[in-house]
Amino acid sequence: MYERLISQLAHVELLTPSPEESLRFFTDVFGLEESGRDDGSVYLRCWGDFFFHSVQLTEAAEPAVGHIGWRTAGPDQLELVVERLEKAGVGEGWIEPQPGQGSAFRYRGPGGHLHEVFWEVERYEAPPEKRSAFPARPQTPTARGVGPRQLDHVTVMTRDPYGDSEWYRDTLGYRFMEYTVLDENPDLVVFSMVTTNEKSHDLGLIADFTDVPGRLHHLAFWVDAVEDVLRAADVLMEAGTHIEFGPGRHGMGEQTYLYFREPGGLRLEVNSGGYRNYQPDWQPVKWRPSQGSNTMYRNLSMPDSMLDAFPAAAPSPEVEAPAVNPWAQGAVH
Amino acid sequence: MYERLISQLAHVELLTPSPEESLRFFTDVFGLEESGRDDGSVYLRCWGDFFFHSVQLTEAAEPAVGHIGWRTAGPDQLELVVERLEKAGVGEGWIEPQPGQGSAFRYRGPGGHLHEVFWEVERYEAPPEKRSAFPARPQTPTARGVGPRQLDHVTVMTRDPYGDSEWYRDTLGYRFMEYTVLDENPDLVVFSMVTTNEKSHDLGLIADFTDVPGRLHHLAFWVDAVEDVLRAADVLMEAGTHIEFGPGRHGMGEQTYLYFREPGGLRLEVNSGGYRNYQPDWQPVKWRPSQGSNTMYRNLSMPDSMLDAFPAAAPSPEVEAPAVNPWAQGAVH
Amino acid sequence: MYERLISQLAHVELLTPSPEESLRFFTDVFGLEESGRDDGSVYLRCWGDFFFHSVQLTEAAEPAVGHIGWRTAGPDQLELVVERLEKAGVGEGWIEPQPGQGSAFRYRGPGGHLHEVFWEVERYEAPPEKRSAFPARPQTPTARGVGPRQLDHVTVMTRDPYGDSEWYRDTLGYRFMEYTVLDENPDLVVFSMVTTNEKSHDLGLIADFTDVPGRLHHLAFWVDAVEDVLRAADVLMEAGTHIEFGPGRHGMGEQTYLYFREPGGLRLEVNSGGYRNYQPDWQPVKWRPSQGSNTMYRNLSMPDSMLDAFPAAAPSPEVEAPAVNPWAQGAVH
Amino acid sequence: MYERLISQLAHVELLTPSPEESLRFFTDVFGLEESGRDDGSVYLRCWGDFFFHSVQLTEAAEPAVGHIGWRTAGPDQLELVVERLEKAGVGEGWIEPQPGQGSAFRYRGPGGHLHEVFWEVERYEAPPEKRSAFPARPQTPTARGVGPRQLDHVTVMTRDPYGDSEWYRDTLGYRFMEYTVLDENPDLVVFSMVTTNEKSHDLGLIADFTDVPGRLHHLAFWVDAVEDVLRAADVLMEAGTHIEFGPGRHGMGEQTYLYFREPGGLRLEVNSGGYRNYQPDWQPVKWRPSQGSNTMYRNLSMPDSMLDAFPAAAPSPEVEAPAVNPWAQGAVH
Repeated sequence: MYERLISQLAHVELLTPSPEESLRFFTDVFGLEESGRDDGSVYLRCWGDFFFHSVQLTEAAEPAVGHIGWRTAGPDQLELVVERLEKAGVGEGWIEPQPGQGSAFRYRGPGGHLHEVFWEVERYEAPPEKRSAFPARPQTPTARGVGPRQLDHVTVMTRDPYGDSEWYRDTLGYRFMEYTVLDENPDLVVFSMVTTNEKSHDLGLIADFTDVPGRLHHLAFWVDAVEDVLRAADVLMEAGTHIEFGPGRHGMGEQTYLYFREPGGLRLEVNSGGYRNYQPDWQPVKWRPSQGSNTMYRNLSMPDSMLDAFPAAAPSPEVEAPAVNPWAQGAVH
Repeated sequence: MYERLISQLAHVELLTPSPEESLRFFTDVFGLEESGRDDGSVYLRCWGDFFFHSVQLTEAAEPAVGHIGWRTAGPDQLELVVERLEKAGVGEGWIEPQPGQGSAFRYRGPGGHLHEVFWEVERYEAPPEKRSAFPARPQTPTARGVGPRQLDHVTVMTRDPYGDSEWYRDTLGYRFMEYTVLDENPDLVVFSMVTTNEKSHDLGLIADFTDVPGRLHHLAFWVDAVEDVLRAADVLMEAGTHIEFGPGRHGMGEQTYLYFREPGGLRLEVNSGGYRNYQPDWQPVKWRPSQGSNTMYRNLSMPDSMLDAFPAAAPSPEVEAPAVNPWAQGAVH
Repeated sequence: MYERLISQLAHVELLTPSPEESLRFFTDVFGLEESGRDDGSVYLRCWGDFFFHSVQLTEAAEPAVGHIGWRTAGPDQLELVVERLEKAGVGEGWIEPQPGQGSAFRYRGPGGHLHEVFWEVERYEAPPEKRSAFPARPQTPTARGVGPRQLDHVTVMTRDPYGDSEWYRDTLGYRFMEYTVLDENPDLVVFSMVTTNEKSHDLGLIADFTDVPGRLHHLAFWVDAVEDVLRAADVLMEAGTHIEFGPGRHGMGEQTYLYFREPGGLRLEVNSGGYRNYQPDWQPVKWRPSQGSNTMYRNLSMPDSMLDAFPAAAPSPEVEAPAVNPWAQGAVH
Repeated sequence: MYERLISQLAHVELLTPSPEESLRFFTDVFGLEESGRDDGSVYLRCWGDFFFHSVQLTEAAEPAVGHIGWRTAGPDQLELVVERLEKAGVGEGWIEPQPGQGSAFRYRGPGGHLHEVFWEVERYEAPPEKRSAFPARPQTPTARGVGPRQLDHVTVMTRDPYGDSEWYRDTLGYRFMEYTVLDENPDLVVFSMVTTNEKSHDLGLIADFTDVPGRLHHLAFWVDAVEDVLRAADVLMEAGTHIEFGPGRHGMGEQTYLYFREPGGLRLEVNSGGYRNYQPDWQPVKWRPSQGSNTMYRNLSMPDSMLDAFPAAAPSPEVEAPAVNPWAQGAVH
């Protein structure tokens, strides 16, 4: 029986070696709102994010992802999820309530990333001067910088994107939507997407050919319209931020993308558009890069810098990486 | 325990006294695709609808809604839903498999509308010349007329929108998102919205002050971008179709709307945009028309014709309708 | 021989009884840039305006237009224009160089408005921190508030829009593009548009039924895309600014409009879109309001407040105004 | 004295070795309207083009441009233009009235292309079923395929883009807006743009390193909004037409571009957006490719195929072409 166990991606903890510069970028240029601070972390949210925070920015030696937080579909589903995670042998135990949330259960995903699941959340309450004319909005839109509406998805590196996708589907009820195999090696899955919502993914999985587990590829934010992605590119360029890739359109998920780096080195994405798919029994669709899985217009290569993941790591001597770099053919999403 | 029982609005049967003119409009001007016919009905779908059909067009004496079809979240959820409907005393029994779907269970909603729930569906298979460059699309976009992407929602008339919304929430797991009370009578709920997905509604409920149950207000279709709503308005006007209301923006749901009539007399909507909300425990938000519940820019009245519902009916002598017409203040969605 | 004598609308002086509130609105909410001040005036420009200023804000007892400044197509054309204006008996003489411009010749237009023509201009030079990544832009886009790109047009009140349009065409080489007559009185021209560029108008003319000459209807600014007009509406609403009319689409000129008031009381417009027409021998097109001259979707009335012009004035006892208010039928642009 | 002598680019004659396939593409997929035929040519126009035709499609052995037609700003300006062209020694004499136009004077531009100038035009008259709801439109929008609104610009190959731009400015009153020099050779101008209107160019000039004069790079058409460029990409891809380059954004002119080939081999562009500049004394702006002259986001290379011009030709042994291919760095527009 298909069950919806997770209701949404709630927040992601980002590690940055340049916490002050990162914070200034996230608030002034990217246009997030600060919710609060404690020792070592600043809590941020988009204007349309309903909870206390969607980004936790924490100082660290290297750019990386700290942990990924998911809200379950209810308190009973939290129990069920914990049961399944323990049965799968990946549980790391409960943690105390943290800023913005009640007790959470932490687990290590198959790619080595630290995740947490929880039900209780603290909702953001806007002060009078930020109350929106739309009573269903948590606050007025941020008129500063890019001003994305909400957190959208996180894309991580892992040894086996296809196997992981099956694991997220079978263990936690994610839907497995689409994946990419190489044109020259149809057995090698280099990217796949799983989702808890109507979009193609709130968790992206990219093949990692290093021995370092738990690496991050990018964190993505949503804007209401494709025009807003183009406006974001303009805002970023005029602020002196290099656009790494895009604006363009992914074939997988049909989303319009724009990638760039924050000062700590991490890659961020602004995206919009994409399909709405409601089928619980959706069968994952296979793409090849030549079909436009990454760049739908099939007329450009992804820049090599898009291969970088965080923290940086050397190729594994024990893994057979593709002879031809798959990313140069546009497989990453 | 919150459970997702329904996965999506799958199709709506529309009754038309002008079947030929309606069909020509739906295919040539509105840009739907014909899937098949049987005695009395033509089956239609949008290019992005995955199933055999999303609209069933049936000849009848008056414009009205025939039935409304919902796909459950799985086979087990179908059983659970049937159990609950029977317990609620609204079941009308199973019907044989129909074009595009397996056995369905029919029930009468609190507003008197005929609904059906089912799990098994027939998926549309595009012939080679309609296969899309995007393998996750069911076919190429329809380049003819408006060409909406998919069915979006149905809005019906009922005596008690608030009570019905609670019923859909408690009986079938819909989320109750937003509702409107009159500025001059905060006890009178004139519109409310429930949803099975991330948008504000796939089922809208408008207060009916007549004695005729089961009436339809409009059927809505989705386009990818707000610009496409404006393009739809242009296409319709140039085809000689009067625009009844819009393009404009609803405060409730934040969607951009455009209303018009098909030749049988029924009201259709093209919409895009709107928020994405994933909270299972969302508490319904109350609006007043003066806040822009209907027309967010708060500077225009909905035309009186938007009061029409189908079939036409006289006000009930036994219902106390508001002294001031609520719709003239823009309460309908 | 058709000649292009005027190259563009360069600036408009606005009079406001609330100079501080107006200035704060123009800079903080509307997103203009301050260029400088002298006694009684603040000089403002949009980020994409190339000259020293496009708006001069001057304190006065009542909201009104001070003067309207046009740049000629060259120094020779300035001589020719002055010659023609003197021959037409409307010249008021040369004035000394002013902030941002060289000597200008002032004249009184047929509606009683004070205009000036000049050739020499001072160009805005961005400081290093505002230099754009696009070397052909005068500065980076203003990321604050609405942030329109450039001044677009001015619309004034006058006794005889049609006659004035002929005067501007014959005396100064404007093109006469479109006009509106009433459905019930095809001899009464209530609105007309003349232009020095490819759009429908940089000077709009509305029939005035009072005895006060030289009144203003609105001043309009340009944004790059229709989506930006919608974004402007959102920004204004969230800043507590009432939207007077729109967003909507004019039939005349095909532009998307949005009207609101600044704190001094004057009406401003944000617009985008519209046709590009390059025919020197274009014959003016006649519209009736019922065709959608004002609101192309033909399903809403312009609010009565849109009748206000500045300064306020009573209807003239000597002018026969239309029995039915033409503006309520949507004739103004 | 600056004078506006040319009012607009009126039509371009395209030569195609596959006239039937080209015609089918131009009408069915690209969405132009056929105006008429004579021996060897089919006359086409966009729905928003006001004259009899904007494209003349003529059978030939190789893909190439036949001639380029410009309408003058008036009959007197036609005389003046002819005088200047004869004085410049490039006149080829008058030709008889042709379909859609009166007598025209032909001349050979500095790049070896055949141009003609004329004043008298035949305007397209829509049959009743194609009359638009907008009386200022020549007809209803074409609902078939891409359906561009109007001809936008032509870009040709020439030995000396900078010198040619000066020639068009000094001889015919075009404005010289922007040009690109190589980063590694600031004396080599590889692209420049001149215009008769408010946009950056209706005539683009690309450095040709062959000995074949009069070659074509592409012909460009206009759509109202950037979203329409994205829609065009979707329509073309779904019709099996390869997208050669884009959608993307040029730094020069700020326009959003999309390049592809018609079946005869010629390159077409769909574009939208871009600035509006009205300064007669504009000084041309110099760009380097590294600034984003071609691809403003500075993160991708133009594909080598974009070097192709028509007819195909070998590099000249006598011209020193840049050691590094400038186009691979994105210099072309």
